[in-house]
Amino acid sequence: MNPGSLPPRADALSRLIFELSKLPGVGSKTAARLAYHLLRQDLESCRALSESILRAKEEIKPCSECFSFTDVDPCSICSDSRRERSLLCVVESPSDVHAIEESRMHRGLYHVLHGVLSPIDGIGPERLKITELEARMKRAEEKGEPIREVVIATNPSLEGEATASYLSRRLRERGVRVTKLAHGLPFGGALEFSDRRTLGVAFENRTEMGGGS
Amino acid sequence: MNPGSLPPRADALSRLIFELSKLPGVGSKTAARLAYHLLRQDLESCRALSESILRAKEEIKPCSECFSFTDVDPCSICSDSRRERSLLCVVESPSDVHAIEESRMHRGLYHVLHGVLSPIDGIGPERLKITELEARMKRAEEKGEPIREVVIATNPSLEGEATASYLSRRLRERGVRVTKLAHGLPFGGALEFSDRRTLGVAFENRTEMGGGS
Repeated sequence: MNPGSLPPRADALSRLIFELSKLPGVGSKTAARLAYHLLRQDLESCRALSESILRAKEEIKPCSECFSFTDVDPCSICSDSRRERSLLCVVESPSDVHAIEESRMHRGLYHVLHGVLSPIDGIGPERLKITELEARMKRAEEKGEPIREVVIATNPSLEGEATASYLSRRLRERGVRVTKLAHGLPFGGALEFSDRRTLGVAFENRTEMGGGS
Repeated sequence: MNPGSLPPRADALSRLIFELSKLPGVGSKTAARLAYHLLRQDLESCRALSESILRAKEEIKPCSECFSFTDVDPCSICSDSRRERSLLCVVESPSDVHAIEESRMHRGLYHVLHGVLSPIDGIGPERLKITELEARMKRAEEKGEPIREVVIATNPSLEGEATASYLSRRLRERGVRVTKLAHGLPFGGALEFSDRRTLGVAFENRTEMGGGS
């Protein structure tokens, strides 16, 4: 999405629409709708939104342990003593941490790569937080709290799969167990709209159903 | 959409997601996606968006003539000498002015009602900019530039139609020509998905097609 450019003497409304149209998934019509909505709100509401953007940008930094976004360092997950410290989930971005936390299915820690391998964009392993991951595993070992399993939860895209494979090879050399999230039919999705690959994996990994009641 | 409430000691990221989720059509997942997007941008981009919200809210006011949003008073449309001053288009909200201007189909001026009649919400004629419209017509007459036609362009909703009827009765008493936008099949829409009323109007107002080449 390219919001184009703005004439230098544009009025405040055009400028707001222009800035809003830079947001992902927000075209010029949606941007206009959002802008007019904001103008109908009281000054306090507009100020709350405006300030929350700047405050988040100023206060939220990558955690020095897991590289997820946080306002305290280490982040609330890394410093939570109730989390399983031997289980590490590797994701592409901080928003993936958010999504997995919402599912409440992971009781361990995280490590955010901040990207995926993408040779075409010139993104090699050195651009991702992989040496940081290895250093972190080494520190954990030295503290007598070794990481025993790394769950790779990159996106089910070409780049995500390639990154998972690369990382798996590199980590298994260190003798750690490496797993990845299961593929299969998504809940709520219609079988007829599933792609061939998903359907193939769903067949391959079909699970036994119990009989009886 | 009710974004719920936020714990008082929420971190800056949760607060940003919370504020974004108040925007129309933005649920909690979209709000999170927008927030993470903003955190990936540089400080300058975030500041530009943040400031454009406040600046728009501070600088944009209703035009004292037409009540559309503007940063100069009267607005650029009201003060544009090339516009047809005898033709007035009445709309519900400033965003409708934006939409009609985009279509470039109206060469006259506007008048924004800032709402529609809605007895159930206790919104009567006195809550809309109708007396202001009449005063404006009177001023125009006194200046020797009378408004000859009022095009009512309220939304094709129950309230919009009721407001159009009410306004039409009230304005015709003043001897002005009152028209409203045509109803019919929308371009790009599928006939089979059109509602009965639209289809009925489309039949009723069907237009002659020329023969030959």
